[in-house]
Amino acid sequence: MAVECGIRILFYIIFSVFILNSCDGAATDIELDAKAQLLHRLDSLNLLLYTFLLILTVLTIWTFKHRRLRFLHETGLAVIYGLIIGAIIRYGFTTNSAILHMPVVPDNSSKYNQSVPPDTLWLRFPEDKGGGLIKNKTFAYTFRGEIYKEDNEIDLKATFDPEIFFNIILPPIIFHAGYSLKRKYFFRNLGAILMYALLGTSISAFVIGALMYAFIQLIPHLSTSFTFLDTLYFGALISPTDPLTIISIFNDLHVDVNLYALVFGESVLNDAVAIVLSGSIQNYAERYQSGSGGFETVAFFQAFGDFVGIFSLSLFIGATMGCITALLTKFTRVRDFPLLESALFVLMSYSTFLIAEASDLTGVVAVLFCGICQAHYTYNNLSPDSRQRTKHLFELLNFLAENFIFSYIGVSMFTFPKHHFDPGFIFAGFLCALLGRAANVYPLSFILNLARKPKISMNYQHMLFFAGLRGAMSFALAIRNTVSDARQAMLTTTSLIVILTVILQGGATTQFLSWFNIPVGVDEEIEGLSQNGVRNYNSMQDGSVPTGAKPNEKALLARIWGDFDTRYMKPLLTHSRPTLLETLPVCCGPLARILTTTQQMTQDDVSRKIDSDSDFCLEDREMERRRMNVQPRKRNHDDDDEDDDDEDLRIIGMEGFIPLRTL
Amino acid sequence: MAVECGIRILFYIIFSVFILNSCDGAATDIELDAKAQLLHRLDSLNLLLYTFLLILTVLTIWTFKHRRLRFLHETGLAVIYGLIIGAIIRYGFTTNSAILHMPVVPDNSSKYNQSVPPDTLWLRFPEDKGGGLIKNKTFAYTFRGEIYKEDNEIDLKATFDPEIFFNIILPPIIFHAGYSLKRKYFFRNLGAILMYALLGTSISAFVIGALMYAFIQLIPHLSTSFTFLDTLYFGALISPTDPLTIISIFNDLHVDVNLYALVFGESVLNDAVAIVLSGSIQNYAERYQSGSGGFETVAFFQAFGDFVGIFSLSLFIGATMGCITALLTKFTRVRDFPLLESALFVLMSYSTFLIAEASDLTGVVAVLFCGICQAHYTYNNLSPDSRQRTKHLFELLNFLAENFIFSYIGVSMFTFPKHHFDPGFIFAGFLCALLGRAANVYPLSFILNLARKPKISMNYQHMLFFAGLRGAMSFALAIRNTVSDARQAMLTTTSLIVILTVILQGGATTQFLSWFNIPVGVDEEIEGLSQNGVRNYNSMQDGSVPTGAKPNEKALLARIWGDFDTRYMKPLLTHSRPTLLETLPVCCGPLARILTTTQQMTQDDVSRKIDSDSDFCLEDREMERRRMNVQPRKRNHDDDDEDDDDEDLRIIGMEGFIPLRTL
Repeated sequence: MAVECGIRILFYIIFSVFILNSCDGAATDIELDAKAQLLHRLDSLNLLLYTFLLILTVLTIWTFKHRRLRFLHETGLAVIYGLIIGAIIRYGFTTNSAILHMPVVPDNSSKYNQSVPPDTLWLRFPEDKGGGLIKNKTFAYTFRGEIYKEDNEIDLKATFDPEIFFNIILPPIIFHAGYSLKRKYFFRNLGAILMYALLGTSISAFVIGALMYAFIQLIPHLSTSFTFLDTLYFGALISPTDPLTIISIFNDLHVDVNLYALVFGESVLNDAVAIVLSGSIQNYAERYQSGSGGFETVAFFQAFGDFVGIFSLSLFIGATMGCITALLTKFTRVRDFPLLESALFVLMSYSTFLIAEASDLTGVVAVLFCGICQAHYTYNNLSPDSRQRTKHLFELLNFLAENFIFSYIGVSMFTFPKHHFDPGFIFAGFLCALLGRAANVYPLSFILNLARKPKISMNYQHMLFFAGLRGAMSFALAIRNTVSDARQAMLTTTSLIVILTVILQGGATTQFLSWFNIPVGVDEEIEGLSQNGVRNYNSMQDGSVPTGAKPNEKALLARIWGDFDTRYMKPLLTHSRPTLLETLPVCCGPLARILTTTQQMTQDDVSRKIDSDSDFCLEDREMERRRMNVQPRKRNHDDDDEDDDDEDLRIIGMEGFIPLRTL
Repeated sequence: MAVECGIRILFYIIFSVFILNSCDGAATDIELDAKAQLLHRLDSLNLLLYTFLLILTVLTIWTFKHRRLRFLHETGLAVIYGLIIGAIIRYGFTTNSAILHMPVVPDNSSKYNQSVPPDTLWLRFPEDKGGGLIKNKTFAYTFRGEIYKEDNEIDLKATFDPEIFFNIILPPIIFHAGYSLKRKYFFRNLGAILMYALLGTSISAFVIGALMYAFIQLIPHLSTSFTFLDTLYFGALISPTDPLTIISIFNDLHVDVNLYALVFGESVLNDAVAIVLSGSIQNYAERYQSGSGGFETVAFFQAFGDFVGIFSLSLFIGATMGCITALLTKFTRVRDFPLLESALFVLMSYSTFLIAEASDLTGVVAVLFCGICQAHYTYNNLSPDSRQRTKHLFELLNFLAENFIFSYIGVSMFTFPKHHFDPGFIFAGFLCALLGRAANVYPLSFILNLARKPKISMNYQHMLFFAGLRGAMSFALAIRNTVSDARQAMLTTTSLIVILTVILQGGATTQFLSWFNIPVGVDEEIEGLSQNGVRNYNSMQDGSVPTGAKPNEKALLARIWGDFDTRYMKPLLTHSRPTLLETLPVCCGPLARILTTTQQMTQDDVSRKIDSDSDFCLEDREMERRRMNVQPRKRNHDDDDEDDDDEDLRIIGMEGFIPLRTL
């Protein structure tokens, strides 16, 4: 308990400093100044609290890594420290300055006839009200929200505006996920990933929604406060799985690359699916409320249209901004100035988020696909310095943001004023979250295995089921709206599910991997390419006799896209060969000439380092070249290059601080 | 005007998207939701505006650099783009949704007798007030501030809370300044820098305050609204000079290192001095108001005490946190995990700012000295990867923050609602700012030249005078408080001074350097060490015959500190030699053994790369070694190392994107 003691002492010191300092001032102006300063100091103290928590987490993670302890992961640690500090704040301190509030009514002279409340109030103290010097003064107040229960507890500090999660914390995490996606294996497993993420998450949401609704009917005091839409919303927000914890463990242990791709790809995409899905459910609910009641087919299809429309438009904006950045970095020589280049990169990526949000689309989805495009195209145009800068920057931002969010989940369990502990709902929530995950993984794997050549073995399915930790996205969605009792119960349940899955499942992952005989310590470069087919086949079918299947069995979709990408997108957006002059029909010659840089024309076929995931369309390109009678590339050399790049991306992508080959 | 057109088109597109999207909703709840969403979208649009401005600035800077145009610097560009966009927003759009406000009075049932206004209001619409569905509902409002003029304009958007400047924008800029300070030359010119920064800024503030007060007495309509304290406050906020623009030009041109050190050192430190000085003036004003009036000796000395106390306590906190980080990085092996290490570094540095702010001290001062200590000690303990990460990170943050601030200054000239254009005050402000700068540079240089060996020539003095651009700190201080007419006039004048000095002086710097015969294109490594004394002497005395003065003429203070630093601080905080075992008295042997790492003991004397500014106490150390009979260091090799490091720091420090040796 030395840590706890230390925290307590530090806190007392800081608190005593700021309490001692705040006892001066007599006149109102000075009191107001002092009040503003007090609030500023409280804000600083809040931020300091989380900074301190993060420092503590960093130091403990280091100790754990140093001593090779694996029973607790960094996110688990952040949560636990958060819980401890939250409890200390809750029970260790009594807030001495309760917030003063005052009921007011409209002035008699005002003729306010709008249907919405005003944005600002001007409070004038008449002669007979208020003490001291505030008589005859006017103060401005800004709108905050509707009050449902007048006996609501005081908003404690140490909690943040939920919008901060959406606008500041999530974007770098999601962008980083896209930017560090292992695209080679991602595209190889594209079909399965899309199936799990798009269809699976929706199935999971509906299964959880239905089961929860059925459960709630059994518990009398809950059945009145939840509608089916409420439980469906809960289903949507608890369905997305969290990439952070599990992936950093996988990375640590060098788990089989295909399992890695499945888990990571699914959990990155289902965050995007869940946020759009929950938005559509809310839209449906709004239309539903304003209508007659009962199931409304029109509203349902509108909501479905919303889902498809918002998702694809956001995807389009993200991809477009990624491509614009690629064009900017290709056709200007901004790469001569790495600082300018990386600033441009960061600004373009953040503006993607903002453009999507400003157009009422989903910034998270846009920024995810922007990240994927930036990695796929722009990354290849960047100067080596900028590559490293951008990787390092987003890696650090991601690290800080994810640990902040997990500390916050811990602290807010105690300090957030709008928790509602309902044992029945919590129990039902845990059970349904498990069942929902199962309803995603097992039936879809069965269907996938009907068509898929390297089948997904039962052990892999168990691991996929087990990898369904809940994390930041669930929490962010849950805390966004906490006005009703129902929503508060959802927040509490979600927080508990996140905390327990992160600590328990995260801690037990290593154990489970060995129970399920998942290959670990896989050396990706060697296995991934030269003995690719055999090993993958082995590990996927788990025990069956290896056949001579083609190494790169790909879905038709992936093939078509890969071909298009190599022939048109990459030559347009990067400096890669073949150029558009070679791939476009002859009639487009002049256009192709404009869009092809001298660098692209003159670069040496052998020495060029093209991009980080070209393996995924290797044969296509090979065929392409033969057809066009271009001299074949020196395979070995090129492969090495690509692998270096990809390995590089992978290491920094997830957890740069893991020394390679720890096993 | 293609740029302007482009902006206009982009804006219309975005605006039309968001106006089209915002026309739905009928019931109050949905209206409220829609309103919240509209505000969110407006926020996104605001941020997008600045992101877009920054992208534009980045691209234009690149063009300028590419074509080697030097008549306009990037900060000047950011300001000009800001002005253009600000004008478009101001005159191009009519805000269609005016903010609704409503006067209210306390409820009859409330017995509110506090002397301060309440923190939140609960507005209840009775049956007879308000239209539509808001009857009988209660809404919460939070305190914003006092209203002085009820006919005040609507707060336009595209303006930010001034607190954001202090808590988010300034810290990385100031930290970066400290972290990239060229310490070798800084310490060599320590006396002059401290003189200009501490004494000079105070002199400048009082001269400007007095002159402004005298001026204002001549203009009848101003004389009533300004007190001497107001003009003194103006003096304090307009005195600090801005390092950004001038330094990046100096860096670009490889200006003589001593001039560089003088200008950079002064402008970094006087930011810190100005913020504490203005705080002390405010404190004095508070005490003064509550007292009897007239000059109060007690209050004056209290304010002076505040100045000294706050400055030194903040400095102490900053230095302590820097040293703690150094100890943490020395005694743990966290350097095995660069991501953790750089996260720790960032968190410790930010917590320095927060600790100072939470203890009612000045975060900016703390973070500046924290940066200096981090560079001086911690930097040497970091892994090569973390060194690069932290440098790159703060460089990027600094770049974005400084360009944001200058764009904002431009935009806010048109959009900030609290500007007050008073030609008399503006004219007086410009004149006094010039005179104040002169009162700083020339008398102090004269005094310095009495004692200083390499004298500061008149041309150098002119250049110092000329380098007094005003920048981010002046603006941030001016915008912090804009309640009264006087304060608004100060903000307007400050903004104009910043804009004009940055554009005109910034643009003319190259010209002035050649007029004043300042050596440019100086190759620092060669000149700075081997021909050090001769060249410096030459350039400083400008025309006089070079004498055989010792190269490293240092002030007594710098000598003592340098000695102490080499013997105790560095061995304690870094892995450098000599170790504490060699420097501490024999009786402290056991303690010294604990504080000396094995790495420190075992490292090779030749191969070690010690630190980046050891030159500044080279002879001391040399003497030290001879006294202790330790084998002498191989000078040449070591010097190379040090120079590499320092050069490295310098390049990234200021403008990493400048290709070396552009001249």
